[in-house]
Amino acid sequence: MKTCYEFANFEQIEKKVLALKTDSIFFIVDERVWFLYKESLPCTKVAEGKNFHVWIAPRGEEAKRIGEFEKCVEFILEKGVHRNSHLVAIGGGAVSDMAGFVASTILRGITWSIIPTTLLGMVDASIGGKVAINSRFGKNLIGAFHSPQNVWINTDFLNSLPEDELESGNGEIIKYAFLSSEIYEAIMNDVNRDSLIDLCVRYKMDFVTRDPYEKKGIRRVLNLGHTFGHALEKTFSLRHGHAVVWGMVLLFQILNRQDLLDKLNALRINLGWHELPPPWSSGDVPINKILSYVDKDKKICDSKTISIVCLEDIGKPCVQDLSLEEFKIKMQRALNG
Amino acid sequence: MKTCYEFANFEQIEKKVLALKTDSIFFIVDERVWFLYKESLPCTKVAEGKNFHVWIAPRGEEAKRIGEFEKCVEFILEKGVHRNSHLVAIGGGAVSDMAGFVASTILRGITWSIIPTTLLGMVDASIGGKVAINSRFGKNLIGAFHSPQNVWINTDFLNSLPEDELESGNGEIIKYAFLSSEIYEAIMNDVNRDSLIDLCVRYKMDFVTRDPYEKKGIRRVLNLGHTFGHALEKTFSLRHGHAVVWGMVLLFQILNRQDLLDKLNALRINLGWHELPPPWSSGDVPINKILSYVDKDKKICDSKTISIVCLEDIGKPCVQDLSLEEFKIKMQRALNG
Repeated sequence: MKTCYEFANFEQIEKKVLALKTDSIFFIVDERVWFLYKESLPCTKVAEGKNFHVWIAPRGEEAKRIGEFEKCVEFILEKGVHRNSHLVAIGGGAVSDMAGFVASTILRGITWSIIPTTLLGMVDASIGGKVAINSRFGKNLIGAFHSPQNVWINTDFLNSLPEDELESGNGEIIKYAFLSSEIYEAIMNDVNRDSLIDLCVRYKMDFVTRDPYEKKGIRRVLNLGHTFGHALEKTFSLRHGHAVVWGMVLLFQILNRQDLLDKLNALRINLGWHELPPPWSSGDVPINKILSYVDKDKKICDSKTISIVCLEDIGKPCVQDLSLEEFKIKMQRALNG
Repeated sequence: MKTCYEFANFEQIEKKVLALKTDSIFFIVDERVWFLYKESLPCTKVAEGKNFHVWIAPRGEEAKRIGEFEKCVEFILEKGVHRNSHLVAIGGGAVSDMAGFVASTILRGITWSIIPTTLLGMVDASIGGKVAINSRFGKNLIGAFHSPQNVWINTDFLNSLPEDELESGNGEIIKYAFLSSEIYEAIMNDVNRDSLIDLCVRYKMDFVTRDPYEKKGIRRVLNLGHTFGHALEKTFSLRHGHAVVWGMVLLFQILNRQDLLDKLNALRINLGWHELPPPWSSGDVPINKILSYVDKDKKICDSKTISIVCLEDIGKPCVQDLSLEEFKIKMQRALNG
């Protein structure tokens, strides 16, 4: 199913929710969003002939525990869901990942929509239909492909977003800027935030449409900065977008590309991101821990080589295969500065 | 993905498993099958360059509890699954339902195959890609569509199948006989068991291929006897196939079709099924309980009418819409004999 992306304010979202062709809507709402925006959300409206049920999900990755998934599913089944019921996720990427997995599995799949409330959710998590919950052995290991019917983007939510979450979203936007010269130029020319979000959504959507089930490898370039990023994210408990940026920094260091490092710095400044020291600069670098995470990530491909998304220039990503040994040596060298 | 159905003995199955293009295979095996057939199963063979892992699942619906699903998924993730890993379910419908749901959600979907060990599994559960686990609020409420790559049918398993499980499989076969005159004739002409299974598989496959995600209503005729059957199954704790047969008996009584009741009796005798009194004949009939289950089933459609698969004649199913009230009155009349 093709997802419909639209910018909409609270009033417009309410109308769109009420216009959904169903008598039964389940809302899964991030607890902080519920606390701050309860009165403005469509789920608190009374509408004739419509049954609304609200499930409050815990913040962040907590929402993606299998126990939380189970509680949420049982709540929805208890309330009486039918095949024409619709689910609406209101929250950041963690809440929409979980809610989408609920929507994909309840009665073997009901339709759903997302109202992303974080910048990362708007430009990344809500696009592509990848939904999942976490295992004890890693993030997003239990999931499905289940595209939402609608994504309603209301940037008013960003006004209350904590600084580090805003930065995390900007981290993914910086990634897009390296993949697309149009987005790079937009940031350097200080285009307004809504237009920038729109560019990122359309950029990712293009890849997703061409490879909805990630079968063709087309989506791989979207993982720029992610191979290192994921390992850094776990090692230093970073936010996802921060980790992606530091993953790119590490990649550009490995590739000996000072020009790209300079561009990254310029993008960071234009997006209002404070200068931060790399997480690996403080004290001892737990290189083995980082390498073990990269090694674990490797499990997803069945080979002794690791594919990394590299960059010839802005807008020119390419995939390079490195032997795992070669990769480890290069990473070690870069981390030790 | 189109499923490949093949009859195969233990030796042939072993070869086919070893020929799977992967270095990593997870087996989910019914505990009774494991106890009886351990030595003959492919999972106990040693094969160079292949990693085999075995998860023993409890018998019957117990395998489909969300807690069992979680334990099985975490086992597989702990052992190190990758996107090219393959899963093989060895057991009846409950085990393959659960295993298929595991295969559909692990890393957002890995390929899988089924070795059905019950007659019901061979002629029904293994066909169609519907996989699911149970909720506290009902069976198969959490699931997906995820077709297996292969179904390897080894009727040797049926030699150790308890009588009532064999009968349960024959119950679904009787249903097929009413839907297809070819299958009806085959039974009345005492065709051999393998050919009969083959006919049933091909009959159901035809519907599944034309409507893989149950979107078009084409598969609905396969539910002959199921609307009442499901309610009787829960009310009297019947086996599925038995419930389907009694569901058909009730339907034919409601439709005043003594000719179909006679044919059902002839089929039953030819399949070697002992005569049993209808479950509702002994003592008080809990009509309200039965009706409440039918009512609950109704939830899956968004209306005040209920669609029932009826039968003009052998091979001529049709769908009739009844108002829920009318339906209740007719059912009540039939149950009271």
